Amino acid sequence: MNSILVVGSVALDTVDTPFGKAREALGGSATYFSLAASFFTQVNLVAAVGTDFPARYIRLFASRGIGLTGMKITEGRTFRWTGRYGFDLNQAETLKTELNVFRTFKPSIPRSYLSSPFVFLANIDPDLQREVLGQVRKPRFVACDTMEYWITRKRKSLLKTLRQVDALLINEAEVRELSGEVNLIRASRKIFTMGPRCLIVKRGEYGAVLFSKDSIFFVPGFPLEEVFDPTGAGDTFAGGFMGWLAKDDSTDNYTMRRAVIAGSVMASFAVQGFSVKHLLSLTKKSFSKRIKEFTSLMMQ
Amino acid sequence: MNSILVVGSVALDTVDTPFGKAREALGGSATYFSLAASFFTQVNLVAAVGTDFPARYIRLFASRGIGLTGMKITEGRTFRWTGRYGFDLNQAETLKTELNVFRTFKPSIPRSYLSSPFVFLANIDPDLQREVLGQVRKPRFVACDTMEYWITRKRKSLLKTLRQVDALLINEAEVRELSGEVNLIRASRKIFTMGPRCLIVKRGEYGAVLFSKDSIFFVPGFPLEEVFDPTGAGDTFAGGFMGWLAKDDSTDNYTMRRAVIAGSVMASFAVQGFSVKHLLSLTKKSFSKRIKEFTSLMMQ
Repeated sequence: MNSILVVGSVALDTVDTPFGKAREALGGSATYFSLAASFFTQVNLVAAVGTDFPARYIRLFASRGIGLTGMKITEGRTFRWTGRYGFDLNQAETLKTELNVFRTFKPSIPRSYLSSPFVFLANIDPDLQREVLGQVRKPRFVACDTMEYWITRKRKSLLKTLRQVDALLINEAEVRELSGEVNLIRASRKIFTMGPRCLIVKRGEYGAVLFSKDSIFFVPGFPLEEVFDPTGAGDTFAGGFMGWLAKDDSTDNYTMRRAVIAGSVMASFAVQGFSVKHLLSLTKKSFSKRIKEFTSLMMQ
Repeated sequence: MNSILVVGSVALDTVDTPFGKAREALGGSATYFSLAASFFTQVNLVAAVGTDFPARYIRLFASRGIGLTGMKITEGRTFRWTGRYGFDLNQAETLKTELNVFRTFKPSIPRSYLSSPFVFLANIDPDLQREVLGQVRKPRFVACDTMEYWITRKRKSLLKTLRQVDALLINEAEVRELSGEVNLIRASRKIFTMGPRCLIVKRGEYGAVLFSKDSIFFVPGFPLEEVFDPTGAGDTFAGGFMGWLAKDDSTDNYTMRRAVIAGSVMASFAVQGFSVKHLLSLTKKSFSKRIKEFTSLMMQ
């Protein structure tokens, strides 16, 4: 089985939406990613939490078979994020970010993870992303996320990271910011010259687009009557996407397309509940059912 | 062959985009619709223009076999629209609307058009839309467009029109305004109670969604490197959609989905040039080629 190494944040999120509130709930990019990807394959998590991190969440990761050798428990408080969404759930407003133990986080990859074939670098400082890549041995497929902050403040470092990356997963505004192009086709071409051979543009309720050098694939956002909390949708998507590739042991065009669908289906579950609650309720049966519903949305 | 009756505007458009300018070019909802639909079937146009309307445009319609018995040439000036687009081509800014002869337009349907099986009511006053429906004899399939102005200012009249309509084609903001629902699934359900059994939501670069009572179908916007002028994209879409239904002589679910693709492909041609220029260059060959490219964007 192909294992996946993920490096990113594990956090406690306080989220306010028009449909309810979650307080100090399990969150963080690496959390959503791991829980989604563990549905398909072995995931190994590298992150840091504080001594206040609830033991039940550690048990939760363990119950999913997620490798925790690289999860550092450091003296201090866990990373916290506080955010709010309006009725238009597309855009989160960050009210507070407390880095806490994440401020001094230096990813150190356990020896047993060094030959991970699949690597996901969640949205962290591009210097740290490269520190991970410097440690692992020739991974088969590396994907990464980033955000506007790094694109504008640490562009040089980010570009160095991108040279070593196969797939970049970012949202539309980030694509435009990174490439300097409004048009997505032109933007994708520019991004291909930076290193990645594959670009996945996340468009929230409008779905996602997979650009590779000779093909474009569009998926819609799964239409839901109730979206409770969009937090983590992108990382859940990435987890479903990478998990699918690892499980199918391929990164060819057909598998990539299927993986984008798997990621979309996973993300559609995640947003139906606060924090990771609804994602955790996912079963093989409900997953297959939604895959069928999803493909029928695009079938002629 | 199933003919289509269309009632709407024929206009002279002055359009300014970051990529160029068109002055007094052929425009109007019924124009784009007719030229697109005439690619597939016989179209009969009911509209009014002024005595200043260039004869070459009349010849253009005639060259497409478009029926002009219902095209009234009235003493006065033709309807004019002046608009502007920014780099974000999604939203037109209307600078000037001169109704001119359109102000007193009363659609009178020529006797030979009264049994048209397919009817498209372009975006005009819902009173006039109903005046058309009062004249035609039991059409098989009626589709209509509208806009925020009528939804808010003439809601009652619009609701009366909708009772007699099979398909409503509007954009996302209009769907929300009309239904009072942010969520598209709930909005579609509400709109079905108003009369239509089919709702097509136009989403600009994000494509379109076809809602019917038991099925949802998403298509992406065709990815283009250069969009010159989005004017008329929605009406071209409607023309391609209705033209396809009329040609295939069916309104079943499969045909509707194919028709949405045909409409999207048509619209993607229209926006590649100013006014109707690029739409007119469409050939059977370039249409089939793009249909193939389009379906490959959604194919697993």
